[in-house]
Amino acid sequence: MQLGLIGLGKMGGNMAERLRRAGHEVVGYDRAPGKRDVDSLPALVEALEAPRVIWVMVPAGDPTKATVKELGELLSPGDIVIDGGNSKYTDDQVHDVMLREKNIGYIDVGVSGGVWGLENGYALMVGGTKEDVATAQPIFDALKPPAPVDESGQELPGAGFVHAGPVGAGHFSKMVHNGIEYALMQAYGEGYELLAAVDLIEDVPGVIASWTQGTVIRSWLLDLLVRALQEDPALERITGYADDSGEGRWTVEQAIENAVPMPTIAASLFARFSSRQEDSPTMKAVAALRNQFGGHAVRAVQAQEAERPA
Amino acid sequence: MQLGLIGLGKMGGNMAERLRRAGHEVVGYDRAPGKRDVDSLPALVEALEAPRVIWVMVPAGDPTKATVKELGELLSPGDIVIDGGNSKYTDDQVHDVMLREKNIGYIDVGVSGGVWGLENGYALMVGGTKEDVATAQPIFDALKPPAPVDESGQELPGAGFVHAGPVGAGHFSKMVHNGIEYALMQAYGEGYELLAAVDLIEDVPGVIASWTQGTVIRSWLLDLLVRALQEDPALERITGYADDSGEGRWTVEQAIENAVPMPTIAASLFARFSSRQEDSPTMKAVAALRNQFGGHAVRAVQAQEAERPA
Amino acid sequence: MQLGLIGLGKMGGNMAERLRRAGHEVVGYDRAPGKRDVDSLPALVEALEAPRVIWVMVPAGDPTKATVKELGELLSPGDIVIDGGNSKYTDDQVHDVMLREKNIGYIDVGVSGGVWGLENGYALMVGGTKEDVATAQPIFDALKPPAPVDESGQELPGAGFVHAGPVGAGHFSKMVHNGIEYALMQAYGEGYELLAAVDLIEDVPGVIASWTQGTVIRSWLLDLLVRALQEDPALERITGYADDSGEGRWTVEQAIENAVPMPTIAASLFARFSSRQEDSPTMKAVAALRNQFGGHAVRAVQAQEAERPA
Amino acid sequence: MQLGLIGLGKMGGNMAERLRRAGHEVVGYDRAPGKRDVDSLPALVEALEAPRVIWVMVPAGDPTKATVKELGELLSPGDIVIDGGNSKYTDDQVHDVMLREKNIGYIDVGVSGGVWGLENGYALMVGGTKEDVATAQPIFDALKPPAPVDESGQELPGAGFVHAGPVGAGHFSKMVHNGIEYALMQAYGEGYELLAAVDLIEDVPGVIASWTQGTVIRSWLLDLLVRALQEDPALERITGYADDSGEGRWTVEQAIENAVPMPTIAASLFARFSSRQEDSPTMKAVAALRNQFGGHAVRAVQAQEAERPA
Repeated sequence: MQLGLIGLGKMGGNMAERLRRAGHEVVGYDRAPGKRDVDSLPALVEALEAPRVIWVMVPAGDPTKATVKELGELLSPGDIVIDGGNSKYTDDQVHDVMLREKNIGYIDVGVSGGVWGLENGYALMVGGTKEDVATAQPIFDALKPPAPVDESGQELPGAGFVHAGPVGAGHFSKMVHNGIEYALMQAYGEGYELLAAVDLIEDVPGVIASWTQGTVIRSWLLDLLVRALQEDPALERITGYADDSGEGRWTVEQAIENAVPMPTIAASLFARFSSRQEDSPTMKAVAALRNQFGGHAVRAVQAQEAERPA
Repeated sequence: MQLGLIGLGKMGGNMAERLRRAGHEVVGYDRAPGKRDVDSLPALVEALEAPRVIWVMVPAGDPTKATVKELGELLSPGDIVIDGGNSKYTDDQVHDVMLREKNIGYIDVGVSGGVWGLENGYALMVGGTKEDVATAQPIFDALKPPAPVDESGQELPGAGFVHAGPVGAGHFSKMVHNGIEYALMQAYGEGYELLAAVDLIEDVPGVIASWTQGTVIRSWLLDLLVRALQEDPALERITGYADDSGEGRWTVEQAIENAVPMPTIAASLFARFSSRQEDSPTMKAVAALRNQFGGHAVRAVQAQEAERPA
Repeated sequence: MQLGLIGLGKMGGNMAERLRRAGHEVVGYDRAPGKRDVDSLPALVEALEAPRVIWVMVPAGDPTKATVKELGELLSPGDIVIDGGNSKYTDDQVHDVMLREKNIGYIDVGVSGGVWGLENGYALMVGGTKEDVATAQPIFDALKPPAPVDESGQELPGAGFVHAGPVGAGHFSKMVHNGIEYALMQAYGEGYELLAAVDLIEDVPGVIASWTQGTVIRSWLLDLLVRALQEDPALERITGYADDSGEGRWTVEQAIENAVPMPTIAASLFARFSSRQEDSPTMKAVAALRNQFGGHAVRAVQAQEAERPA
Repeated sequence: MQLGLIGLGKMGGNMAERLRRAGHEVVGYDRAPGKRDVDSLPALVEALEAPRVIWVMVPAGDPTKATVKELGELLSPGDIVIDGGNSKYTDDQVHDVMLREKNIGYIDVGVSGGVWGLENGYALMVGGTKEDVATAQPIFDALKPPAPVDESGQELPGAGFVHAGPVGAGHFSKMVHNGIEYALMQAYGEGYELLAAVDLIEDVPGVIASWTQGTVIRSWLLDLLVRALQEDPALERITGYADDSGEGRWTVEQAIENAVPMPTIAASLFARFSSRQEDSPTMKAVAALRNQFGGHAVRAVQAQEAERPA
């Protein structure tokens, strides 16, 4: 089928390629010239036959909001807008109301797969009406991973695709996915650190590589950690600085909203915050308190060595 | 080669089967009659040709300690004892000293794989001298999983087996593996709970199944969670009660010993402790404090309803 | 000076009493007849001489919003509204904009002290313009605690009162205060639980009472815990069920918003969530996973005993 | 009464002074010349009349163990050794067995108070037999704080002193005290950091000072935080580096041993570990993983700026 695709960056560009390989016609638009097929949003709308399906794959937040709003002004009743970016699920609900007034459909899709998606396929978590989702299903079928390969010898129906609920459910599912991702990464990181901390373990990358077959903790992330350690066995070439891209924060916020205890995901998020601090104001306060009550040595900022302030 | 195997339970019995399928001769002993080939430890030692290799696969702690001690009295210089149970790595170091005095070798092996190991193979983390490990290598080769299948298209050398370091390194590695396992399970659990808490998600098992292909968080544990939800879609048939078997505790203890921050694994361990409490003394204290300063309602034990005690 | 006071409940009633003892004229209104001096908001406004100062002390959220909105319609330029409830600081900013358009002043006050405030005074954290705060200062002076008694022998200027910043800063400060409160209570609770868990400690209430003098951890909350244990030495009469009233959640949300690591306050909040669950969906998932990979016994819901499901 | 005191450092020296002010005769010994009354342990024993009471106030671990062992060889039946240092409670149990064989009594005392103890008194948590404790009671009475000053208007019997149980109970109580202390400090630190992170709060030290009267979270530690902020309002002169002295670790270890959930105290301990790391291996692993799956920028070690490694 025919699809308009807005945003031809790392994710969008690969998705266009995967869709074309599957025989779909993709008309691509990007703010930047180069790979784009048309020069403007109006030209994109012009180039598509009604009823149109347009996939928005631009950064979450203002870029996505502006794009959806402009599409609302350009599109016709019966058209469908799909937001495949990392939007907050509450944005979807606003977009849906806005477009629904004009009889334009709206679908939100959480997309996972990263740079590997072109070859492996993209896992898709979808929110929207049954009718809208049915219309876009050929696109989803081309993007999602091939027939499930189950490691434990049993078929896993629905692997790689779900219609999770009404508008918002797709991004909500993806948000939770990313929250879990934070904690999984942190867990492997903590285990790595303990192995690396003791002399007893003479082959840390070897231990982690050994876990990739036959163990309870084997996973794709573990495979990637093995790969990272092959490239840099003691992780000497990078610093322990980790950004966060929103979904982890939203996951914990939703946990709080719904009174769901979420200790490991929250701890992982906080560890990322800490990783970006030059110094910790909390620990400055702790150090100051220790000095006050016990005369414990503190580290003066300039000297960076233990001494007790006058 | 020939192997003596002590302990023919769920794990040991399957391991004997896998070794025999690979052409090894296994002489099995168990306290309980039935599947055993010999009736006593002395008979086991008698049945094996020197130099002997004997694999101990009995519960960690006293049973393993008693077995290793008795073997030390029965075996001859040049024999090797392998402890494949879930022993604490410090026990290995005691056993090694004890046996080494008699020129008996000692290897510790952390074994992962659970009930799936018979078919999939067992991941093995090994601690010991190069010589001892070389002697037992045919056994390890038969137990470990087959040639690595890498999901991301690159070979993973050493998958399923590692010689991690000297005696103790095998069980230490397995201990850290299990610590990570705790946090991975907790992370998936927290994500599951949040999905289940909101009306927006209409197909919770479907969302989780969708994650098994193409996502960043796909893993064997996730496959198992899908399977569990197929059997019991809302987990109505079990309670949230989770035992812990030692390795999680030891992992956090070692983290503390080595000043390694370990927030997610510790949180997962504490969540298991909480899951087994009928009521939380900590939260009783919190409730009592809230009542003291704010006159907040507390729940009396008997009435189980909100009221302020006189 | 003259003050209108809306809300004569546990907090508002005591505050009216403390203000009257200090010589101020309080005209009180409450939805419920009984202690109120006037029968309606219009009557309250009528009863006060312009420029009026009206203190709103009703539940946060809709009741406060409705009250402030109605006051906006009744009051005159130059009057001042004070919200002394537990409102979210973002509500203050909305209220301020709404009232400022009519030249009505707005002050937000975070009030701490609970049922003890009538005698001890109320700690006040204030947000607003310098001019508005100066106008209401006599009220604040009457409510706040008497001249500071410093335990460590040095004067603590500003104890019990602060003008923290512009509108919103008062409730923000109180929000953080309550977040800290959650973690302090949890910390004492955890220590209590460990003492109570071991046979070695024969006098748990005695140990806790001993901490109230001369130790680093002495505090008012500790005094209250001693009092609670005097009334119920093993906390047998209450259950470990703890509500949360909003500020703890908002504190963690603000931490996330500002990328501030907040492990202990978040953990305390999650512990309260857990305390209110009959069973933990997270731990159900963990138990289900343990059963899947290891054949570990799970607890069936009905039988409530360890068995492996078929 | 007469007391031998070994260790005349910051704590021991002040304690000797407080005991002498109360009329007791203290014979002090220290490894270092200067303030000591005798030149050796044998001379100390010689200088005291039997039955002797000797208080050991030297660093925990080897110095205390060596001192107690040597005293065991010098003292006579009926004498009593008191360990007032920060020993692990398990050391006490070893010492008790060793001395009891020679009919020498043993008491362990957890002492809190820091540099303020000379004036305010020392809180004492005591473990030992009734008889031994009775013998040493005059010493305890001189060291402990004066009659309780209760903030909430009610008498707190036993403030500042407890006989918590048999040998070990004193240090166990002190250990838990210190664990709680870690979490209290962390909680105040987290609150401080959030206040300091937002522009809305214009007077952070003022807000914290305001909490010292009339609030739920007022405490001695809070008073000290106010004092620290008076000296250094933005904590610019110290770094967020915090040592730990053992008790926090032991508290969490004991929590694990006894299956007590301890999220806030553990989080506080981990925060101290993190505060001392130049870089976090865990977060290196997280950053490496992010780069692997998403092509997310990482920070190369040398350049310290965002770029993707080749």
